[in-house]
Amino acid sequence: MEEARRIFTAEYLRDLGTAIFEACGAPQEEAAIVADELVEADIMGFDSHGIIRCIWYVREVLDGRIKPGGQIRVVKETPSTAILDCGFNFGPVSAVQMVDIVCEKAKKSSIACVVSQNGHHVSRLGSYVQKVAEHGMIGLAVANTSKTGHYVVPWGGREARLATNPLAYGVPTSGDPVVLDMSTSMISEGKIRVLMHQGKPLPSGCIVDADGNPSTDPKAFYGPPRGAIMPLGSELGYKGFGLALLVEVLGGVLAGMDSSVEHQYLNGTCLIAIDPDAFCGRHCFIHLTDRLSEYIASTPPASGFDEVVLPGTLEFRMREKRLAEGIPLDRETWRQIVKTAELVGLSVEEAASDDLEPPLAAKTRP
Amino acid sequence: MEEARRIFTAEYLRDLGTAIFEACGAPQEEAAIVADELVEADIMGFDSHGIIRCIWYVREVLDGRIKPGGQIRVVKETPSTAILDCGFNFGPVSAVQMVDIVCEKAKKSSIACVVSQNGHHVSRLGSYVQKVAEHGMIGLAVANTSKTGHYVVPWGGREARLATNPLAYGVPTSGDPVVLDMSTSMISEGKIRVLMHQGKPLPSGCIVDADGNPSTDPKAFYGPPRGAIMPLGSELGYKGFGLALLVEVLGGVLAGMDSSVEHQYLNGTCLIAIDPDAFCGRHCFIHLTDRLSEYIASTPPASGFDEVVLPGTLEFRMREKRLAEGIPLDRETWRQIVKTAELVGLSVEEAASDDLEPPLAAKTRP
Repeated sequence: MEEARRIFTAEYLRDLGTAIFEACGAPQEEAAIVADELVEADIMGFDSHGIIRCIWYVREVLDGRIKPGGQIRVVKETPSTAILDCGFNFGPVSAVQMVDIVCEKAKKSSIACVVSQNGHHVSRLGSYVQKVAEHGMIGLAVANTSKTGHYVVPWGGREARLATNPLAYGVPTSGDPVVLDMSTSMISEGKIRVLMHQGKPLPSGCIVDADGNPSTDPKAFYGPPRGAIMPLGSELGYKGFGLALLVEVLGGVLAGMDSSVEHQYLNGTCLIAIDPDAFCGRHCFIHLTDRLSEYIASTPPASGFDEVVLPGTLEFRMREKRLAEGIPLDRETWRQIVKTAELVGLSVEEAASDDLEPPLAAKTRP
Repeated sequence: MEEARRIFTAEYLRDLGTAIFEACGAPQEEAAIVADELVEADIMGFDSHGIIRCIWYVREVLDGRIKPGGQIRVVKETPSTAILDCGFNFGPVSAVQMVDIVCEKAKKSSIACVVSQNGHHVSRLGSYVQKVAEHGMIGLAVANTSKTGHYVVPWGGREARLATNPLAYGVPTSGDPVVLDMSTSMISEGKIRVLMHQGKPLPSGCIVDADGNPSTDPKAFYGPPRGAIMPLGSELGYKGFGLALLVEVLGGVLAGMDSSVEHQYLNGTCLIAIDPDAFCGRHCFIHLTDRLSEYIASTPPASGFDEVVLPGTLEFRMREKRLAEGIPLDRETWRQIVKTAELVGLSVEEAASDDLEPPLAAKTRP
C-alpha cells in the first residue's frame, strides 16, 4: 500500500514556510528566501531537502543554532574572492547572497570564488550552481559539514572523519542548465533513515558497523555504537574519499575552519563562477553545450534504461509535473509541519489564511 | 615468476628520453621537459605514464600528430584567464607553460583559470596540480580527450561518448602536497590492456561488451566490435558520468572544442589555481591542511588496511624509494624503447654516452 499523501500547491507551502520562518524572527524577505529554497527543492523532487526541513530548522532556531536575521557580511575580499560570515542566519539566506557576490565578481573578473564562515544548512547545493548557470556562467560548489556531521570513513579507515561532502555544478545551455548535485559518499544519512523506517536493508557496500565490518542493516549505522558510511566508489573508494577531501579543503579549510575540532557552524560552502565570455565566448559556449547535450542524450540506451539523460533533466521534468499537479507530502511529514507551526505560535489555519491559496487537492490518496 | 626487469637511474632515463625527443626535432629545453615529466611519473610509480610513453610519442611525431617545437601561444586572455594554443607540441611542454601562466595570474588575481586548445597528451595530470601546490596554491585540473578517445558510456547508455576524463587536485601542506589524480571511469584503457596481456579477467562492473552487456573479458572491450568502459560508481554510475561531463565542459567546451566531432587535438586541459592568501591566509591554510592531514591519517585502519593515507602519500613514498633504488622497467618495455631510439636515428649506446650516468644496476631480476 502506498503511503497516504496530501497534495499541496507550491504557493501554499511557500507561504506557510514564510509564515513559519517569520514567526521564528526572520525578516519577511529572508523568511521568503528560505521557504522558496525549500519548496523549490520539493518542486524538483528533492523531497529530503524540501519543506520537510522546516521541522529541523525551527528546532535549530529554538536551540539557538540558527539566528534568524543574523548579520551576514563580507569579512575579507578581493575583486575576485570573498569570505562571507553568515552570522548563523538560515543557510539559504547566506547562500543566495554568495550567488549574488560570486556572479557580480565573475562578471568583472572572469572567474570568482566565495567561501562561507559560520553558515548553517544550505539545503539543496545544486540550487546555487543552477542560479549561477542561469546567469550564463559555469557554477561549481562544494559543502563540507563540521565535525558533528562526520559520518563517512576515509578510504581504508574504520572511523568516520568526513561528511557526505556534496559537490555540485551548473552549466548553461540554451534550455535548462545541466545541474549535478551529488554526495561523495555511497549513501546519504537521510536515505539510511528512510530505509530504516521502511524496515528495508541498505544496498551492499554503503556502510560499515562500529567494528568496521560491512553491513546492510540501517541499525548498524545508528548504533550505538555508531557505524559509518563508505566513500563513493566501492572498491575504488579512494576516489570518493579523495573528492570528499577536496570538498573539505575548499569548503572548510579555505575559510579558515578546522574540521578536526567541534565547531558551531554546519555547512562550509565554496562557490566558484566562471564566465565563458573570457574563454570561447558566450555564444560559442552555449552552442557547444547544446551540441554536447544532444551528443550525450542521443546515446543508444543500455538494457534496463529508456533513455540517456543529462544531469538535471529528470529534475526539470519533475518541476513541470509538480508545478502542474502539486507537491505530495506524506501524512506524517504534514503532521510534523503542522506541529512545527504550532511550536512557533501559528495554527495552520492562521498560516493558511484567506489570502493564501488553498491546497490544490485535499484529497487523500490510498 | 616475476617478469624479468632492469633497473635504471632517473638520470639515465631522463637523458635517454631527452636525446630521443631531441632526435625527433624538439629543442633541447623542450625535449628535457617531456623526458622529465615522463621519468617523474616513473619515479612516483605511475609506470603507465612514464618513459614507456616515449614509444607512443615518437610514433605520434612520425605520424605528424605531435609537432616538436610547435608554437605555443596565448590566443585570448584576461588578468585571470587564458586560452593557450598548444600548437600540437608535446603535451607536457604546453602543460608546464599552463602551470606558469595560471600561477602568475593567480598570484595577482587570487584565482585564475587557463584552458588549452590543440594540445597533445599531457601525461600525468597530477604533476601539474602538484606544481601549483608547490607554489603554495590549490591546483585543480581536468583533461578531456577528443572523440578518438571516447571509451566510456554515459550513465544508462551502451555506446561510448566520453573519455576516461581524469580530474586532479593538489593542496599544499608544510610537507609533501596532497595530490589526487583520478579518472572518472571504473578503469583506464591502459589497465584493460595490461590485464589482457596477462590473460586475466577484469574486475566486474568495469566494462560492457558491444551489445551493452556487462563483461569481465578484456577482449570484449577491444572487440571488434568494441565494448566500452563504465563510469565511476557502479550502481551510482550517474555520479562518475556527471563528473566526466564536467571534465568535458571545462576541458573541452570552455576552450571552444566540440567533442561530438573528430578533432586533431588529444587532451583538452583546464587548470585552475586558487591562492589561499586571498582567503584564510597562507599561514593559516598550511596550519589547517596539516591539521586535516593528521586528523585523517590518524583514523584507525579498517580490517585489511595497515593505515589510512592521504592522496599522494604512497606516491611520494615511492618517489623516495625509486630515487634511492632506481626505476625498474620490464624487458619488453626496454626492448621497445631501444627500438624507438633507433627509429629516430639513435643507438642506445649513443644516447647513453659517457657523460650520461650508467644504469644503477644492470642486473636482471628473476
